[in-house]
Amino acid sequence: MDLLKDAMLTITEHVEEVANSLKKREINSLVKSILKAERVFVYGAGRSGLVARAFAMRLMHLGISVHAIGGIVTPSITKKDLVLLVSGSGESTSVVNTAKIAKNVGADVSLITSYPGSSVGKIADYTVTVKGRTKHKGERDFMLRQMKGEHYTLAPLGTLFEISVLVFLDSLIVELMDRLNITEDDMRVRHATIE
Amino acid sequence: MDLLKDAMLTITEHVEEVANSLKKREINSLVKSILKAERVFVYGAGRSGLVARAFAMRLMHLGISVHAIGGIVTPSITKKDLVLLVSGSGESTSVVNTAKIAKNVGADVSLITSYPGSSVGKIADYTVTVKGRTKHKGERDFMLRQMKGEHYTLAPLGTLFEISVLVFLDSLIVELMDRLNITEDDMRVRHATIE
Amino acid sequence: MDLLKDAMLTITEHVEEVANSLKKREINSLVKSILKAERVFVYGAGRSGLVARAFAMRLMHLGISVHAIGGIVTPSITKKDLVLLVSGSGESTSVVNTAKIAKNVGADVSLITSYPGSSVGKIADYTVTVKGRTKHKGERDFMLRQMKGEHYTLAPLGTLFEISVLVFLDSLIVELMDRLNITEDDMRVRHATIE
Amino acid sequence: MDLLKDAMLTITEHVEEVANSLKKREINSLVKSILKAERVFVYGAGRSGLVARAFAMRLMHLGISVHAIGGIVTPSITKKDLVLLVSGSGESTSVVNTAKIAKNVGADVSLITSYPGSSVGKIADYTVTVKGRTKHKGERDFMLRQMKGEHYTLAPLGTLFEISVLVFLDSLIVELMDRLNITEDDMRVRHATIE
Repeated sequence: MDLLKDAMLTITEHVEEVANSLKKREINSLVKSILKAERVFVYGAGRSGLVARAFAMRLMHLGISVHAIGGIVTPSITKKDLVLLVSGSGESTSVVNTAKIAKNVGADVSLITSYPGSSVGKIADYTVTVKGRTKHKGERDFMLRQMKGEHYTLAPLGTLFEISVLVFLDSLIVELMDRLNITEDDMRVRHATIE
Repeated sequence: MDLLKDAMLTITEHVEEVANSLKKREINSLVKSILKAERVFVYGAGRSGLVARAFAMRLMHLGISVHAIGGIVTPSITKKDLVLLVSGSGESTSVVNTAKIAKNVGADVSLITSYPGSSVGKIADYTVTVKGRTKHKGERDFMLRQMKGEHYTLAPLGTLFEISVLVFLDSLIVELMDRLNITEDDMRVRHATIE
Repeated sequence: MDLLKDAMLTITEHVEEVANSLKKREINSLVKSILKAERVFVYGAGRSGLVARAFAMRLMHLGISVHAIGGIVTPSITKKDLVLLVSGSGESTSVVNTAKIAKNVGADVSLITSYPGSSVGKIADYTVTVKGRTKHKGERDFMLRQMKGEHYTLAPLGTLFEISVLVFLDSLIVELMDRLNITEDDMRVRHATIE
Repeated sequence: MDLLKDAMLTITEHVEEVANSLKKREINSLVKSILKAERVFVYGAGRSGLVARAFAMRLMHLGISVHAIGGIVTPSITKKDLVLLVSGSGESTSVVNTAKIAKNVGADVSLITSYPGSSVGKIADYTVTVKGRTKHKGERDFMLRQMKGEHYTLAPLGTLFEISVLVFLDSLIVELMDRLNITEDDMRVRHATIE
């Protein structure tokens, strides 16, 4: 239970750091690319894909034309579209391939990543940097390990990146609501009737 | 290998029977309901759901606005929409619920089923009857069982219904191509860039 | 940008509140039900479903036998299994139905919800209460609305619940790692080869 | 309606041709690779992926350990596993990548394709050739076009391949039922409780 609570606070602390380290210029570019796109296509591998899809659902609630790449009724991409990718490492094979194909088509490519200098980062037109696990975190883990005499972590694998991106994207929705003058009631009307 | 080939021919024979037993009036009502709908929402449980989604992909290729219920970016349904359901028995709980909610919203409901008198059949505005396994098939199985001295079937569970519906819906696409004057090249252009 | 950051901090503040309000007894019951189950089946509607699936992926990394209800290769449920549901309201039709069927089969049912007294809450064997939006939040929103002279919210729809549950469940993974003596390296080995 | 029926019979005629052209050696290799694998992982892009997943569901009903690549709880692949791919062209980027990664891991790779000499065909250990659209079909289409004075086809895009593979794989299930001595009732017990 102490471990559980400690893990939760490690995560919120990290998300707060992310909130404080976001770059205004990066956010503005992302918002502009979303608003000018004819349609937004989102993609990520594994849990980053779940986060991308959670964001796509909210974009739909805003009335923005959006598709999840790999979806059943996802159409072809054109140069008027935005492809928004989520990848902590920026190196997942399927994300690299998606970025390449999107660029070939002439679409805008945005990437949310911890590594803007990664393979996908080099292809993307716009990048938003969201910190994942850092040395600082490692040290904290280390102390805890010492205390408990075991090898473990308070946020295994991509957890910190994935949750930070979800909180960031859900907050970006609020920013978009404001710019598009959309209320929560407008969103509720578009919410899926049958889930 | 003989069993495999025999099973394949049992299936094609059944689909041919279905092709010969389709009712013109039922097909015309379905085609009209698809063409007049603002958007089409498809749903089915299990493998019937896979068949419904395979059809949805082709409707998208035709340029028809279509969504799979339960999808990530699937919006709310209105009375201008068509909800197209696939259910062999017409009794799957999730399909019954979907039909009820769709009717409440005032949407058109079409059902493809072996049992037009089923729970969903009673709710649906339009029904297309597609035969599943029948006594005739059972007898055929029986002879084979006798011959092999074992208990088995050449098309277990919902196989005959599911494949018959897939062949029917893919052929309906050709009918829709004709009515909408859409060529295969038009469809290719809309085909997903990245799968 | 200020709005974005404010929204992020509203979310982390809420998750911290959740971390401080979790009940030890509820957590212990959930952990026990997961560890004693032959297999765990997760389900939620919409974004709660994405959160449930993100947790399922981590349970798989722990080596626990787990399925997402509605998945392609999801088998039948028996009385030896646990059905873990995520529903803020505890009233989503598909979640209520899932809970009823699971109880009929004799499986254990756990629910993570803001409303333990809801329809699903009454069916569930174990409930973990995770706060969603409350009056306190409403007031905060109200002040902001006043300031900006507009109607909006810093966390629309189910956002606060969904993110809180994700942080909670990801932290529960750390608790489970500890109890099962599983390291991050063990988890990495089970991580999907191809995503 | 005539067009619809004509399309259905074009498809069944094609599937019958496929049934008659299957190579015993290829089928036996595929069956053996499925039976000796610790787990089976299936994958295909677009509608070929739906067909692969419909087969995966039936393998699960047989009690075979099976996963759809890209699924939520799909684990890592080892050299004891079989990766079964469905690709008409054998050239889809995501299928090529999947085949490469699977070979690197040391897993067996089986491919169902119209082009055994394709990129994926060259990587695969076992290949089953299933004919897609051929010149013969083109000629038939041509006569119909002449008659109707329009440009259309009775089975657009990958339809013939996809349906033929579904019928083939569903019939392979019957072959596997026979070899494993599994009855339809055994399968029904494993069928998902909640869909």
